[in-house]
Amino acid sequence: MNFSSTLLENAVNEISQLPGIGKRTALRLALHLLKQPKENTFNLAKTLEKFRENIIFCENCNNISDTPKCEICKNPNRDENVLCVVEDIRDVMAIENTGLYKGYYHVLGGVISPIEGIGPQDLAINLLIERVSNSNIKEIVFAFSTTMESETTLFYIHKKLSHHDTILFSTIATGIPIGNDLEFADEMTLGRSIMKRVPYQNSTS
Amino acid sequence: MNFSSTLLENAVNEISQLPGIGKRTALRLALHLLKQPKENTFNLAKTLEKFRENIIFCENCNNISDTPKCEICKNPNRDENVLCVVEDIRDVMAIENTGLYKGYYHVLGGVISPIEGIGPQDLAINLLIERVSNSNIKEIVFAFSTTMESETTLFYIHKKLSHHDTILFSTIATGIPIGNDLEFADEMTLGRSIMKRVPYQNSTS
Repeated sequence: MNFSSTLLENAVNEISQLPGIGKRTALRLALHLLKQPKENTFNLAKTLEKFRENIIFCENCNNISDTPKCEICKNPNRDENVLCVVEDIRDVMAIENTGLYKGYYHVLGGVISPIEGIGPQDLAINLLIERVSNSNIKEIVFAFSTTMESETTLFYIHKKLSHHDTILFSTIATGIPIGNDLEFADEMTLGRSIMKRVPYQNSTS
Repeated sequence: MNFSSTLLENAVNEISQLPGIGKRTALRLALHLLKQPKENTFNLAKTLEKFRENIIFCENCNNISDTPKCEICKNPNRDENVLCVVEDIRDVMAIENTGLYKGYYHVLGGVISPIEGIGPQDLAINLLIERVSNSNIKEIVFAFSTTMESETTLFYIHKKLSHHDTILFSTIATGIPIGNDLEFADEMTLGRSIMKRVPYQNSTS
């Protein structure tokens, strides 16, 4: 690209560092900022700086938080018997949005991925092991994706925790998404959902 | 969305103000910044602030520029007989990338659009009229899109300038894009390209 301004060029280069944003989109965003009042850009810049400077990870569950302990860990009304292990902060938000889970969480911060150079030491796995040892947790739910990396991570963590005989380990159910046509489901999902079929329950009974 | 952190929530709200970026994408971008060194976010924020604070519009052609006169207007080796009127800064960049145009530019900064409340006074039209009056321009090329708003703008500007008898007014050619299959061209483009057919020139002759 042929920029008439180095200020614009620098802005486009910085914006296009963000994932999924190419140079053309970055240019569109920069020109959008230019059409808006200066305050909008300054607010954006200040908010990002403040966010990056001050955000911390919950010392208990590794969720992002404004305080040393996150809002969920601070809530005494949740079910302390159940711990849900997730890969990412977004998974906590997704599960919280269902309103159906009342236990606590543990955020790994990713999955083991040799290709991307992410090993167990890069994730909050030791924090999890320590946390489980010092608690009376009765069930650990692994709410992971169904990728190869996630299954490896699940296998690894389970091995590290399996000596806790009193803990029930579970994974979230895989199967056909509600509202989806059967014919559009991939073979693996459909195959698993047949193998893991469940007894029919009449919802009126 | 259920945020565990107001800092994150603020960041997501600010990022999702940008056009084409929804809350989910904003969250992905914010979490990406969190995984990168703090300096990356600070550089992004500072570059945007500097860009918005210091960028100016060329006093001659309304292109964005680091200096009162842009690099193109400052270049004495370009063809001063031809002036290309474009809607947007991006159009200048696109035409410059072809390397086939050697005249100067005039950037309107948009098109007349009553629906969006953009009138002639919001565009650099008076600057153009003044500029043309004080020059010896021989040809004005309108390099506009083929939307209704662009054609209205073209009509308006041409009317304002048509008393300059010595100036040739032209528009860029419309037709079938090079490399495109004829069958995929829309009817209007194909229709126009038949009506505006040009004599065949053997490129070896």
